[in-house]
Amino acid sequence: MPERIEVLEDICRQAGRLALQYFRNQASLVIDHKGHQDFVSQADREVELLTRKLLSENFPDDAIVGEEHAPSPGTSGFTWVIDPIDGTTNFINGIPAWTVVVAGVRNGVTECGVIHDPCNNETFVAVKGRGATLNGAALTLSDDRRLSQGTVGIGYSSRVEDQGIVRLVTSLVNEGSMFYRNASGALSLAYVAAGRLLGYSEEHMNAWDCLAGQLIVAEAGGCVEDQNANDMIRNGGRVVVGTPAIFEPLLTLSKTAFGQKA
Amino acid sequence: MPERIEVLEDICRQAGRLALQYFRNQASLVIDHKGHQDFVSQADREVELLTRKLLSENFPDDAIVGEEHAPSPGTSGFTWVIDPIDGTTNFINGIPAWTVVVAGVRNGVTECGVIHDPCNNETFVAVKGRGATLNGAALTLSDDRRLSQGTVGIGYSSRVEDQGIVRLVTSLVNEGSMFYRNASGALSLAYVAAGRLLGYSEEHMNAWDCLAGQLIVAEAGGCVEDQNANDMIRNGGRVVVGTPAIFEPLLTLSKTAFGQKA
Repeated sequence: MPERIEVLEDICRQAGRLALQYFRNQASLVIDHKGHQDFVSQADREVELLTRKLLSENFPDDAIVGEEHAPSPGTSGFTWVIDPIDGTTNFINGIPAWTVVVAGVRNGVTECGVIHDPCNNETFVAVKGRGATLNGAALTLSDDRRLSQGTVGIGYSSRVEDQGIVRLVTSLVNEGSMFYRNASGALSLAYVAAGRLLGYSEEHMNAWDCLAGQLIVAEAGGCVEDQNANDMIRNGGRVVVGTPAIFEPLLTLSKTAFGQKA
Repeated sequence: MPERIEVLEDICRQAGRLALQYFRNQASLVIDHKGHQDFVSQADREVELLTRKLLSENFPDDAIVGEEHAPSPGTSGFTWVIDPIDGTTNFINGIPAWTVVVAGVRNGVTECGVIHDPCNNETFVAVKGRGATLNGAALTLSDDRRLSQGTVGIGYSSRVEDQGIVRLVTSLVNEGSMFYRNASGALSLAYVAAGRLLGYSEEHMNAWDCLAGQLIVAEAGGCVEDQNANDMIRNGGRVVVGTPAIFEPLLTLSKTAFGQKA
């Protein structure tokens, strides 16, 4: 696994460089909003194609599941789950808060994950049982602040009924907590692992957005609502993570806000 | 004014470099949360002192008002209003979304403003009547999307009663709009000017956080709720800005959410 993760980090950085070229070019183009979306869809597809090509060259026996293209099967039992650009709305709008995300899954368990932020040159990495790092430095959560003493990241999308996020904001504010929404779920999960946010809650995320971040938080010493990675690949699901001090209260608030469904 | 603004940009970049040194050093220090806050308070003070020193060397007759230190009076009738680090919570938490902000005010009118984002090397500038720029390129808003088709930045702080932000989130979500909160009001205002957010609304901002951004949005072709800069320096106040297509609806939602007070 140590050699695989080094190769994976390098692949994410290469994909990030390609995405960054598109991001910077779009800023200099005069195109309307619809044109922007087409341009970004092209960027998304091209970055996913590059990531798939590099993964299949280096790990020819593994399966690949991604957001934009059909799954490619493998023979090893190991699956790469990729999101070429997480935070697409930020990417479209020119906001420098989006990431390249890859997780490696075997038997329903996430074994490794990388979240790479090309704009800020930050690479968050975890290998199951071996800890988490940011640009090579170990991440260790040791924050005993309560919900009322810090900031919690939140996310929502058009995939869910819209009153869930209203209820979550209401309960967080009533707890005295600040909320933060930067429109990149993976980046927010990485920020929890790095101690920049106390936690993160979203009613529904897809596997390619969350598996890497959930492992990075867990390996940094945080708590993660238990999910089977294979179920997440099929259906997506609720994502709640946090420091040990705020995880249970945040999970309770999230269940109430989003309803009790699994 | 053209020479003054070039000097001002250079001053903001120098202040930004000093702030960035503190920001990057803190990431490599192992200190507890209280220690962090003291460290950041020191950074805030030192960056304000440098900014004041450079302003008074270059513009000895002007007054200076800042967040951290007592006002220094002038004889020219021109006042510099400075926020050495806007988005202090992000700065403390290690999130690369904070800015150096300076506005120049005469007779209750903001005549120029700079918002500098050192982490992303982006400098947003406006001179009254002469337009707005990002890293030298003209900013021109031409986005006809409605509230339901885009993202609106929102802010809140412990200075206001906390149900205002709950009501604003509720009404934005009910309109079908996405909300965004990156915990730096000035950076969010700059993002509106650059077409990255449709608008921004906050119940109460201080003058040093908002005057520069309000001018940059107006000079980029956006709409800004009318405020007298001298009143803002004394009391702060509500800040609502947006593209022409969403400004009136956002102002109406904001007045309802925050109450009708001026």
